[in-house]
Amino acid sequence: MNNILDSVEFPEDLKKLNPEDLPKLASEIRSFIVDVISKNPGHLSSNLGVVELTMALHYCFDFRKDRIVWDVGHQAYVHKILTGRKTHFSILRQYKGLSGFPDKNESVYDPFTCGHSGDAISSALGLSCADEIIGYKRSIVVVVGDGGIGAGMSLEALNHAGDIKKNLLVVLNDNEMSISNTVGAVSKYLNKIRTMPIYADIRKELRGLIKILPVLGKPMEKTLEHLVELVKIGATPGRIFEDLGFNYFGPIDGHDFKVLTETINDIKHLNGPVLLHVITEKGRGFEPAYQNPTQFHSSGKFKLSEGKIEKEVQDAGKISYTKVFSDALVEFSKTNPSIVGITAAMPDGTGMISFGEKFPDRYFDVGICEQHAVGLANGLSTEKLKPVVAIYSTFLQRAYDQVFHDICLQKNPVVFVMDRSGVVGNDGPTHNGVFDIAYLRNLPGIVLMSPKDGSELRAMLKIAIDSDEIIAIRYPKENIPDEKIDLECKPFGIGEAEILREGKDGVLLAYGCMVQRCLQAAEQLSGKGVEATVVNARYAKPLDKKLILSLVRKHKLILTVEDHALAGGFGSAVLEMVSDEKEDAGKIVRMGIPDRFMEHGPREVILKNLGLDADGIADTFIASLDLTEIKGSFANTGKRHLAV
Amino acid sequence: MNNILDSVEFPEDLKKLNPEDLPKLASEIRSFIVDVISKNPGHLSSNLGVVELTMALHYCFDFRKDRIVWDVGHQAYVHKILTGRKTHFSILRQYKGLSGFPDKNESVYDPFTCGHSGDAISSALGLSCADEIIGYKRSIVVVVGDGGIGAGMSLEALNHAGDIKKNLLVVLNDNEMSISNTVGAVSKYLNKIRTMPIYADIRKELRGLIKILPVLGKPMEKTLEHLVELVKIGATPGRIFEDLGFNYFGPIDGHDFKVLTETINDIKHLNGPVLLHVITEKGRGFEPAYQNPTQFHSSGKFKLSEGKIEKEVQDAGKISYTKVFSDALVEFSKTNPSIVGITAAMPDGTGMISFGEKFPDRYFDVGICEQHAVGLANGLSTEKLKPVVAIYSTFLQRAYDQVFHDICLQKNPVVFVMDRSGVVGNDGPTHNGVFDIAYLRNLPGIVLMSPKDGSELRAMLKIAIDSDEIIAIRYPKENIPDEKIDLECKPFGIGEAEILREGKDGVLLAYGCMVQRCLQAAEQLSGKGVEATVVNARYAKPLDKKLILSLVRKHKLILTVEDHALAGGFGSAVLEMVSDEKEDAGKIVRMGIPDRFMEHGPREVILKNLGLDADGIADTFIASLDLTEIKGSFANTGKRHLAV
Repeated sequence: MNNILDSVEFPEDLKKLNPEDLPKLASEIRSFIVDVISKNPGHLSSNLGVVELTMALHYCFDFRKDRIVWDVGHQAYVHKILTGRKTHFSILRQYKGLSGFPDKNESVYDPFTCGHSGDAISSALGLSCADEIIGYKRSIVVVVGDGGIGAGMSLEALNHAGDIKKNLLVVLNDNEMSISNTVGAVSKYLNKIRTMPIYADIRKELRGLIKILPVLGKPMEKTLEHLVELVKIGATPGRIFEDLGFNYFGPIDGHDFKVLTETINDIKHLNGPVLLHVITEKGRGFEPAYQNPTQFHSSGKFKLSEGKIEKEVQDAGKISYTKVFSDALVEFSKTNPSIVGITAAMPDGTGMISFGEKFPDRYFDVGICEQHAVGLANGLSTEKLKPVVAIYSTFLQRAYDQVFHDICLQKNPVVFVMDRSGVVGNDGPTHNGVFDIAYLRNLPGIVLMSPKDGSELRAMLKIAIDSDEIIAIRYPKENIPDEKIDLECKPFGIGEAEILREGKDGVLLAYGCMVQRCLQAAEQLSGKGVEATVVNARYAKPLDKKLILSLVRKHKLILTVEDHALAGGFGSAVLEMVSDEKEDAGKIVRMGIPDRFMEHGPREVILKNLGLDADGIADTFIASLDLTEIKGSFANTGKRHLAV
Repeated sequence: MNNILDSVEFPEDLKKLNPEDLPKLASEIRSFIVDVISKNPGHLSSNLGVVELTMALHYCFDFRKDRIVWDVGHQAYVHKILTGRKTHFSILRQYKGLSGFPDKNESVYDPFTCGHSGDAISSALGLSCADEIIGYKRSIVVVVGDGGIGAGMSLEALNHAGDIKKNLLVVLNDNEMSISNTVGAVSKYLNKIRTMPIYADIRKELRGLIKILPVLGKPMEKTLEHLVELVKIGATPGRIFEDLGFNYFGPIDGHDFKVLTETINDIKHLNGPVLLHVITEKGRGFEPAYQNPTQFHSSGKFKLSEGKIEKEVQDAGKISYTKVFSDALVEFSKTNPSIVGITAAMPDGTGMISFGEKFPDRYFDVGICEQHAVGLANGLSTEKLKPVVAIYSTFLQRAYDQVFHDICLQKNPVVFVMDRSGVVGNDGPTHNGVFDIAYLRNLPGIVLMSPKDGSELRAMLKIAIDSDEIIAIRYPKENIPDEKIDLECKPFGIGEAEILREGKDGVLLAYGCMVQRCLQAAEQLSGKGVEATVVNARYAKPLDKKLILSLVRKHKLILTVEDHALAGGFGSAVLEMVSDEKEDAGKIVRMGIPDRFMEHGPREVILKNLGLDADGIADTFIASLDLTEIKGSFANTGKRHLAV
């Protein structure tokens, strides 16, 4: 029974509690989160780590007026529970339920909708600058992890904030990990702060010395003055932040409510940029997550039985695209010593971890630094190594200019592997990877491909690694349709599509994961007496011009199907090519993702809503076929503008 | 007469010279650069600042084996002169001449083709990592300015380099400016280093103290030990770099050849990441540039007469789009206190400087930090201010994810002003802004517009500022065609195109700066008896659907014309819309920039080569018309596939 939590709906309720009850509330919140997440997967470890910190912030500030900005936002569950969203917390990340991230449409306590890392300090600084311009007095607080603070954008924002001296409290939530282990020199520096015992006593020692020194006489006075100044600098644990213009406080224990509230109350009225360094433990209070925070970063369902955890096995026997990539990369790298692997703080999510374990000397986890990841690949490939850069589709947006400037312009044959492309599901709009074809296909010299199944992913990775072209492979967060991986998957050239099924009534021209759905749609259609040709396009750039043009000439309908924005996507590329080649572009109908941000929910539900499942594809095929026929019969009558 | 420079073609020649001749060579190089740039504009100030530094680097290293990477690369003129490109230096930045930046196709001394800032440390670190993997021993040197080192990507790379401890020499070329004044806390920190006198003597003083202290007896020994450690940290001028894992040296005088070579030779065999802090003066040795380095950052032609400089007036009486924006923004901001201006280290280039001078409290120059610039705008607009973010088209690529995540997803009505869109001319492929429509138009909720002339730019800026939509305006680096700005420019709604000229034979559907060229083309065509309708599209998103569809119904040819990549651009959007509306997409022919990187050269020459001038547009119109007519006559015969 959650005696205390039951009485807490909003921060006001928290403030009414006896201070001695707060640890109990923290414990109840932890149980509540573990219980919900065990049934309804989400980010566990990070949220268990910030229970006291979140409570303390709400205790010391009033975020109806003040503002709190969470970097990334996956650690905002406690914040949601304490700001009127407790009763809806059980439907977190579910379709029509609470978002897994802060969402400005969900609560006045969320100033921004977010999900990417490194953006928070900039946005918060913007709020602070605005307050000064409009003459509004309040506190702006931003919470950023020790991983996120190393993102280039965070460092840009710190650099600016430290210069212009607006009021801003940056809470550095230092749990010694981003998603897996934090990398980078800043992280090592933070570790040094945590473990340097001399800082504790040096100010005391210094006072002793200062008392004694005057016996040495006048000539030493200047030296003494200098020394004191330098010792102060040297003994400041967060001098790197002081050097950047911040007033540094900490490190303090992020699980000691008293220390937290006292410190926050002490510093909250300070002017200018302040950095509070808080040490927390990911997974705190739940032993399995504490022992293995990476595994519980974003966990699947699990059961607690007799104090032991039982992870619920979902999709038994199924293999994800991620796993196929992970295994194939390791396999190819055994015989190809030129392969180097790069990840931006996502060794687990991308599957790059297996490569890293097997080939540590050829493996680079650069932290949440997508720009640098791509720049590093440039240098590596210049020396004839073969970088495989695994970055989620949505996060590669952060290195768009680097793909242009550091890779395409150099003509350096790097392989980009874009997992989580297309509709990603429960993580919602910030994590959908639905723009990659549009933002990449205008770059000269890049090859874009997407496999229809696991066997083809393996084959494509081989082609990419062996190629002298710049190649980007996209695939979704789903399981492969293959029963097993075909190691002998028929080889194919760059820009080569394949016809999988022939039918006289029109063509389903599918890209990547939509191929399987189109085959199912064709099966349905066949049951209704409509025979569709199904083509696995494989490439969005270069297109298989010859094959597609021959289909256009032969058929009255070409329905392109993709798990990507319609604007500028695969279908758009087909339309451009057919138009350029002076064939009848009027035969082309495009299916894909419309021009709006997608809600969160299970991937299959979202795709179904968009008509991007077998049923929807079959329906659109028939509707388009009718239209094409009508259009044909109305040809040259001028009555071409038909409503669909 | 350049006695010494005449004998120097390659670094080997430099190494043969007497050390006492080097200052004279430096002076000759400066004269040579000033002479060439006075006739053939380029980056002057920065190159005059690095003469001794570049010579010293070539003197101490062998960059046939070792590698030198210049961040941005606009400061690599001396490097070019010393690496076999002296005789071609007079055709710098000219069509078919030397590139204004390092270019890997130009010389083995240039490992990368570059032009954007902040990328160099990543690429250089990649080379160093590759060397270790393949077991190759050599030095990797990267030169980065005090502006560029504050770019997020540079900070990401420093953070990584300081962690993984590969061999890398980062030369920080600190001239206290990026293009105009460097901003940010790192810059202030560097300034502190330069001006802190106590560092010079503290180590000496410390030695004195240590000698005396033992008289105080045993109990003070531990304190003493701690003190020495802390004083060392506190007294390290570059402790921020030390804290990031670098071995810091400097600051040293970047114009003292002896100090430079001695220091470089001392440190060049050190293992791990080393940062050498070099103080240089922009414009050194040429008084006008020294006094006004920003004006001479990228200078126009000038003449030296009697020691005084006469800037050659080009295009007398002409007004650039930049100037129109600059003036209009100031004008509108006088009566609209919600307008805030943001630039990323380009106050002059973007014209934002006038706003900054008039409204310093509402002006933010964030340094070379495009990501942060957009994040900051998010915070500002959340509080109902109206950020106008002026970033060149190519540099906004660096904030693509932020436009998505921090602006579009938030539905915050920010105005993006993308100067230098389209073919930019002499700066070449890194500076061309030819992808912005493609990478932006897939983002939900964004409005894309481009004015046909200065009057319309002013009107569009007004529309954008008054709007609740997210708006991006693109315009090129050229002068406006208007004789004067029409202050009463007829207002128009979002998504509203206009017909400028009516003709029965087909439509020229032009975007932005192509409108004027299409009007000229229509004039030419009319002389040949062909009458074209000319439409100023104004918007790439949303398109004026109604108008365009009515044109498609009425005409047999719609020729879209844009100064942007064909893949995913304006014409592609038109094609998509017409196809979605089931009208005859076969009537659309698209003109724009093909799928390859453009060479550098005057903007008008490059556009002409692409057929994007009045002549080319008229020719294509006629060719397309013929084709459309032939196609019409072959209709339904199956013989549609015609070569053009």
